[in-house]
Amino acid sequence: MTSQEEKTENKNEKKEKKEKKNKTDSNTKYDRAGLENVMKRRFFTSPAFEIYNGIAGLYDYGPTGCALKNNIENYWREHFILEESLLEISATCLTPEIVLKTSGHVDKFTDYAVKDVKTGQAYRCDKLIQEWINKEKNKKKKPSEEKLKELDELYQECDKFDEKQIDDCIEKYKIKSEAGNDLSKSYKFNLMFETQIGPSGGLKGYLRPETAQGHFVNFKHLLEFNGGKIPFGSASIGLGFRNEIAPRSGLLRVREFTMAEIEYFVDPENKNHKKFDTIKHLKLPLWRAKDQLEFKPITNDLTIEEAVKNKVIANETLAYFISKTYLFLVEIGIRPEGIRFRQHTPTEMAHYASDCWDAEIETSYGWIEVAGHADRTCFDLSRHSEVAHIDLVAARPLKEPKIVKGVKVSPNKGVIFKDFSDKAKAKKLCEKLEKLTEDEKEKYMQEFENNGKIEVDVDGEKLLLDKEKNEIKMERFENKVMEEKFIPNVIEPSFGIGRIIYCVLEHCFAVRANDTKRTYFNFPPCVAPYKVSILPLVATNEFLQFVEPIRKILVQNGISYKIDDNNDSIGRRYARTDEIGVPFGITIDDITVKEQTVTFREINTMKQIRLPINDIGIVCRNLSNRVEKWEDIMKKYPLFEAVKKE
Amino acid sequence: MTSQEEKTENKNEKKEKKEKKNKTDSNTKYDRAGLENVMKRRFFTSPAFEIYNGIAGLYDYGPTGCALKNNIENYWREHFILEESLLEISATCLTPEIVLKTSGHVDKFTDYAVKDVKTGQAYRCDKLIQEWINKEKNKKKKPSEEKLKELDELYQECDKFDEKQIDDCIEKYKIKSEAGNDLSKSYKFNLMFETQIGPSGGLKGYLRPETAQGHFVNFKHLLEFNGGKIPFGSASIGLGFRNEIAPRSGLLRVREFTMAEIEYFVDPENKNHKKFDTIKHLKLPLWRAKDQLEFKPITNDLTIEEAVKNKVIANETLAYFISKTYLFLVEIGIRPEGIRFRQHTPTEMAHYASDCWDAEIETSYGWIEVAGHADRTCFDLSRHSEVAHIDLVAARPLKEPKIVKGVKVSPNKGVIFKDFSDKAKAKKLCEKLEKLTEDEKEKYMQEFENNGKIEVDVDGEKLLLDKEKNEIKMERFENKVMEEKFIPNVIEPSFGIGRIIYCVLEHCFAVRANDTKRTYFNFPPCVAPYKVSILPLVATNEFLQFVEPIRKILVQNGISYKIDDNNDSIGRRYARTDEIGVPFGITIDDITVKEQTVTFREINTMKQIRLPINDIGIVCRNLSNRVEKWEDIMKKYPLFEAVKKE
Repeated sequence: MTSQEEKTENKNEKKEKKEKKNKTDSNTKYDRAGLENVMKRRFFTSPAFEIYNGIAGLYDYGPTGCALKNNIENYWREHFILEESLLEISATCLTPEIVLKTSGHVDKFTDYAVKDVKTGQAYRCDKLIQEWINKEKNKKKKPSEEKLKELDELYQECDKFDEKQIDDCIEKYKIKSEAGNDLSKSYKFNLMFETQIGPSGGLKGYLRPETAQGHFVNFKHLLEFNGGKIPFGSASIGLGFRNEIAPRSGLLRVREFTMAEIEYFVDPENKNHKKFDTIKHLKLPLWRAKDQLEFKPITNDLTIEEAVKNKVIANETLAYFISKTYLFLVEIGIRPEGIRFRQHTPTEMAHYASDCWDAEIETSYGWIEVAGHADRTCFDLSRHSEVAHIDLVAARPLKEPKIVKGVKVSPNKGVIFKDFSDKAKAKKLCEKLEKLTEDEKEKYMQEFENNGKIEVDVDGEKLLLDKEKNEIKMERFENKVMEEKFIPNVIEPSFGIGRIIYCVLEHCFAVRANDTKRTYFNFPPCVAPYKVSILPLVATNEFLQFVEPIRKILVQNGISYKIDDNNDSIGRRYARTDEIGVPFGITIDDITVKEQTVTFREINTMKQIRLPINDIGIVCRNLSNRVEKWEDIMKKYPLFEAVKKE
Repeated sequence: MTSQEEKTENKNEKKEKKEKKNKTDSNTKYDRAGLENVMKRRFFTSPAFEIYNGIAGLYDYGPTGCALKNNIENYWREHFILEESLLEISATCLTPEIVLKTSGHVDKFTDYAVKDVKTGQAYRCDKLIQEWINKEKNKKKKPSEEKLKELDELYQECDKFDEKQIDDCIEKYKIKSEAGNDLSKSYKFNLMFETQIGPSGGLKGYLRPETAQGHFVNFKHLLEFNGGKIPFGSASIGLGFRNEIAPRSGLLRVREFTMAEIEYFVDPENKNHKKFDTIKHLKLPLWRAKDQLEFKPITNDLTIEEAVKNKVIANETLAYFISKTYLFLVEIGIRPEGIRFRQHTPTEMAHYASDCWDAEIETSYGWIEVAGHADRTCFDLSRHSEVAHIDLVAARPLKEPKIVKGVKVSPNKGVIFKDFSDKAKAKKLCEKLEKLTEDEKEKYMQEFENNGKIEVDVDGEKLLLDKEKNEIKMERFENKVMEEKFIPNVIEPSFGIGRIIYCVLEHCFAVRANDTKRTYFNFPPCVAPYKVSILPLVATNEFLQFVEPIRKILVQNGISYKIDDNNDSIGRRYARTDEIGVPFGITIDDITVKEQTVTFREINTMKQIRLPINDIGIVCRNLSNRVEKWEDIMKKYPLFEAVKKE
């Protein structure tokens, strides 16, 4: 997710509205307040530091939210890392400036801001202008047709403005701050959090805006770990940070967030995927860049195989991961009809990408990007190779051996250290010569052949090495090789876990019989925060004695549970566990005492079966691990009709 | 882990040396270089940003290290969160200054530093002085007895020095930098990473040095989630950051680290634990503060029950978690004889603690703190209550009803907003009056009773509210209550996951038959990075066809695996998987083709059994989840004697 990408969100929402203009807007019906009420009251999430009035864009996860988050992350691990044999790494958030300078983030990871000249309140320019436009359009006195057209165009264009265009726009339309004050000139604001590493004050660092760089700087280790073979992927689940100018939209735009990223390294000459056959039959909703620009709808009728064949999606590996993402999202509870894949238009593409498809989910806020699938080409590995002077390359076997020409550089250290009085400089000089790239060697070789000496730049000083003084030897050579080196390309699926969590909450939020007080979440069991509730029908010792043995069985099977031995009616207690989406409920009743069975209730159907205590472990595990479905379990055990109604 | 705690490490190592002076030092024999070689070569960890020459104190985890880390974290979750029904939360790393000012970290989370006046290189003062002492003592010309005594005392004392004492010491002994240059005056250096939140530059923030504050600021939500009942615990696994002055010792002293912390909230009048009986029989190695100061050894012969009874450990809850930590460490592969619990001496206790016991593990670096168990009393909740003006309290039922006196403050908003021209100020005033603590209300009441008016401080300005003007009403009342409120105390077990990982690596590192090239890790299966290897005896289609079905079985059972279908000898491939501690190896051979069975080898015993393919899932799962041990499995299946020797 780049800053650039976000800017297009509003635009796309707008396009969507155009598409839908003749439909009723289903979003207005969504009970977001109801959802937010449950999220807060049952501690899924909470604004961070709320007792100190909170900090915009920072959220904490409570027990229910945290469990949901862990489960989604664990399923992501299973679905991607374990299934695709990816190499998981965990790299640091603290990142020295040089890495993010090299990656382009220091220069390009920016938004434009303006400040209220009186209060100092900052605004993101594009959002500010767009909000002003919305207000203008909704004024009692409607703008003229001509004016409306002008505003619509401005809405579309303002996220591509430079400083001058922004300042001109603000002046022309007399746009003010929320408090009605004048605004400062616009300025570029880098979205990375800056800090100092170490006590000497010399080392500027940032909190990483993406986990990706941690993969790239470890590329050599990863390739070696994989036995030198390509393709392979690395994966990482970890924090990213982004100092949003004025974050809103709750969990959807935050300053600290969990990302799950895959960097899949491929041979640029072969971006096929060996498991492509397993997904090629899927038909996914694809919205091409071309179609977006021409206000054309989504394509729904292409198989993935056809999409690759027709160059809608650039290559098999990109298409494979798009498909895997689709399957992932459906499995964790997103409604299939609320998913689409939107290709980036040329102007919104991040600085490192050649093609990109966002997975978007429909929410009450509109369509929201939750994952990107970018072909980052060889951009990152090339840049780090250049700056760190290290070859980040892989090799492919050749069908026939090839003659490779090269240059051997042999500095004579003994002589150099004798000739140079500044030993530290001599050391740096030798180190530099050891790290030359092939291109640099060739350049020096030409100099050497022409002049018999070479000039090496060390910390801005030109140092001369002379063949005659025996300081250096250089030779050309030819080798017969069986492989050729190349810089791998990178296909990057990148997931915003917090956004996905929010979308799962929205899509799984349900209401019974139109009674807005009887809400529940129909989470798939694999992601539900707690899998089972344990409810003694009444809190007598006769029933309570079963709680601990049942709890033990659940712990042994790694099943999270919630005990409610309050004396409230069973219906009320079901309602409480329903509210946080506990998919299964165990009640201990008279029959339990006589027959060692419990009732086992499912949240969606509210149907109950009679389950032997001995089977609780395996049934809960199979349901949670997606080995069996409720329908399967229902067939195996007798239905139980409770006497009282809930 | 506080900064203060760390300072004592060296001191304790020193005490240890004294204790051991007549023993041979077993540490010198430990093959740390061998371990580090494997860790690097097989990508357990790597210095972060190595291609840019690295940043001290930052490490990345590769696939093996990352899997080990995940497994240890997951087992921690099972052992603590699931078993103890703790409430897991995930709070942000970014923390506004006010929170860490309130917690005392802004003022007290500091070390003293000095700089080389020429190079700017910074040193931590106590470490610098101690290193200088070590050098002095190891000089060819041994110091006199008297001098030795002076140096020993200095070694013990220097970590408690203030600026002046440090400067005097450096001057007196003419201590220089590593480069031989003069040193600056000493200065306090705060160990927190600072940053700015938001674009306006007004909000100073830090990266949290501990996860604990995230629990305290969420206390009200947590208590409510727990139905208002106490005791209960919250838990969090997340990052902590500490800007070490000059980090060394590899993974043991880093700037970004994963912590697992529990805040267990108890009634200060009842710190018993309901599951105390389950651990009270344990005899743990306890090193009391008193005994440390008197150079007396560790106590090994007290049961936990006796330790609490004799006030060696302050209360049951503290003792319960100390015991749980012991069981946790043993289960993940730490040798029991390499664990001890050391009580903090009064001078080293953190500013918030009343009693503290560190879990320490013996390593080649000496005894290392990996977890702390502190009684933080009501320090944090009281401080946040005071500063945020919010009651962070719980309630206990009373045996008999009690009369509670209080003050009701009723500002008359209508009148106030009429009387005050500055409406923003009026709003703030009313908000402040809504948030008064009981103490503040009493103070205002006295003012009100004396003068008929009260003076309220809003942003430094004193605002007057007058009874006569009908701006405010205040009344005393009496209520009969059935419960009384109290500020809970907090027992905090806090784990450094990175340190634990390093200790597990050290303790599980083993060598076969004294051949330092045949190293392996005898990780318990539950923490091993990969549980099983899949090795076709030779890479023919006949054998390879079994790889995918076996892999599928493993994925379905959530078992991590490593396939090695290289044509190397089976012995070589075993050696490779041994080196990263894969506990079980599956080979596919002739008999597999005929009988659908595989060989199944265990790493420690190197014994093999013959296992039906259908049983692979359940056997691997039971071994990984600690349901069965290798000895149990051995009894169920026929032993298989390989023809060739490994």
